[in-house]
Amino acid sequence: MSKNRNIGKKSASKLKSRRKNIPSTEQLMEGILKGDQSMLARAITLVESTNPEHQEKAYDIIEQCLSHKNDTLRIGITGVPGVGKSTFIESFGSMLTDMGKKVAVLAVDPTSTLSKGSILGDKTRMPHLVNDPQAFIRPSPSGESLGGVARKTRESIILCEAAGYDVILVETVGVGQSETAVHSMVDFFLLLKLSGAGDELQGIKRGIMEMADAIVINKAEGKNIKQAERARSEFERALHLYPPKESKWSPKVVCCSSLNGSGIPEIWKMVNAYAIQSKASGFFKNNRQNQNTYWFYQTVESLLQRQFYNEPSVKKAMLPLQKDVEELRISPFRAAEQLLAAYSKGLK
Amino acid sequence: MSKNRNIGKKSASKLKSRRKNIPSTEQLMEGILKGDQSMLARAITLVESTNPEHQEKAYDIIEQCLSHKNDTLRIGITGVPGVGKSTFIESFGSMLTDMGKKVAVLAVDPTSTLSKGSILGDKTRMPHLVNDPQAFIRPSPSGESLGGVARKTRESIILCEAAGYDVILVETVGVGQSETAVHSMVDFFLLLKLSGAGDELQGIKRGIMEMADAIVINKAEGKNIKQAERARSEFERALHLYPPKESKWSPKVVCCSSLNGSGIPEIWKMVNAYAIQSKASGFFKNNRQNQNTYWFYQTVESLLQRQFYNEPSVKKAMLPLQKDVEELRISPFRAAEQLLAAYSKGLK
Repeated sequence: MSKNRNIGKKSASKLKSRRKNIPSTEQLMEGILKGDQSMLARAITLVESTNPEHQEKAYDIIEQCLSHKNDTLRIGITGVPGVGKSTFIESFGSMLTDMGKKVAVLAVDPTSTLSKGSILGDKTRMPHLVNDPQAFIRPSPSGESLGGVARKTRESIILCEAAGYDVILVETVGVGQSETAVHSMVDFFLLLKLSGAGDELQGIKRGIMEMADAIVINKAEGKNIKQAERARSEFERALHLYPPKESKWSPKVVCCSSLNGSGIPEIWKMVNAYAIQSKASGFFKNNRQNQNTYWFYQTVESLLQRQFYNEPSVKKAMLPLQKDVEELRISPFRAAEQLLAAYSKGLK
Repeated sequence: MSKNRNIGKKSASKLKSRRKNIPSTEQLMEGILKGDQSMLARAITLVESTNPEHQEKAYDIIEQCLSHKNDTLRIGITGVPGVGKSTFIESFGSMLTDMGKKVAVLAVDPTSTLSKGSILGDKTRMPHLVNDPQAFIRPSPSGESLGGVARKTRESIILCEAAGYDVILVETVGVGQSETAVHSMVDFFLLLKLSGAGDELQGIKRGIMEMADAIVINKAEGKNIKQAERARSEFERALHLYPPKESKWSPKVVCCSSLNGSGIPEIWKMVNAYAIQSKASGFFKNNRQNQNTYWFYQTVESLLQRQFYNEPSVKKAMLPLQKDVEELRISPFRAAEQLLAAYSKGLK
């Protein structure tokens, strides 16, 4: 207590309540390693926080979690809104927990602030899984840049794995750039599609097709089955047009019904076949290493930019230069050089 | 000559030959302003050069060209390989030169090193335009990052405009990220499509549809006409699904035949209607200013990164940190922090 002698009553009580609210790093680590869901959730809240103190703590925890290597599988799941991602995850995830697996569901959804309809925001979309003690579901953080949301999801994966989750499902919407971010944090990338009318207009991007390790045609049930089968052979033909993947895995196209469960066990078998093949070839490990490197450089560049734009000399020179650029008094390149010069001068 | 007293014979002759090969900034500027195509071409070569001396000279020229404002139109043209971009440009461009316009054709094609089939690389694809004194065709530079290629194309536009070219056509392939780059350097963005089978598989991205100010269905000739008309109404319906554009322009869908010229004059009328509308609303000018700002920040960030990665302290720390990240000895975030710290220390 003697150390706190100079702290006013108010600050002291604030500090106390903060201490009360946030467990220590040790407590959090202990909880995570025991698989305590509420401790895991609180640690992820620290990861998502923008408070520098919380971030510092979060990085201590992430650092400690890194060394707890588990034999995990990270599966990315994408598809346009309405394709049935939640019901698929509900069905696929419940099957896995029935098999004794521990399943974590995370989301990357930078669109949530725009559409107000955050994926995973409404946990009731997965009524069974949400009450399953073997499953951990984390709604998507919102209101930040894609880079920020994605980085935090990636860090949450590390925490979930240290907490003993075997299978990590990362959900994202198949529009925009979020799939690329998810693709660079998972082992297996699964694209959900619907058969039939209107799907072309939902316009999944060519790039996503190329990323997919499997295309799953959902809602293949009742009178949809025939149409789904037709879509399956169409997609198979389309996939043949792409060059072979670095993993040497040939992407599969399968039909399933999240409603009646048909095709769901086959998808798990397929993911396992992929894991066996890519581990044997060394691709699995290699890919994770490359992903780590990718996130390292992504983080370097975002920190570098933040540092640059926060430098007072840059802040001061930036808008006048932008004005000059807009009005053609200077070329963008010369203006950029001058801003860099202001930065260097400011650092000295 | 007395200044050169200390320069050896070899250097002196090298200097002399360089002087002979590259005209002075004044000569180049004079040539450009007179509309001398060979001087313009040589100036663009300086823009594309990676030699720092050439770059310095190039920026002096660009800076001087900026102030020569002309009433120009920059039109981006994209479409997958095979859609007939060259024949369209040949037909559209020749019509414009017949009308007394001066037309420059540039290209952004970062795929050229991969596919070896550089767009515009083969000038014989536009046999008429290439011999037209009113037209200037510049093959795409290759072997660099998209950012680099795009920036240089954008700078070449400035030079072409100072040389009196009224209409600048910027061609790009509709795969990858190059359309976004082109979209951010043109006034009007035109997407070429084919009607009929196989086109869906050519998979134009949703994002490109959203960027397009017009979709032009090419090869609408002979027995293709009916199919092209059908495609036209389909695309029109599809475009209705998109939110209105900031420019308030409703994108048009038109058919044309680059072969027999039908529909080509209507496309020029449409582009003019767009220019009139967007100039009246102020969007035209505003958009160009935003584009300048965009290129300013793009350049700032690429210079900042170059400076960072060239800093000796960063070079030294980078690979060991990357190794630590790959092997999970450190989190990407902590490693990034350390690399930034090395940078700051190195600058002091």
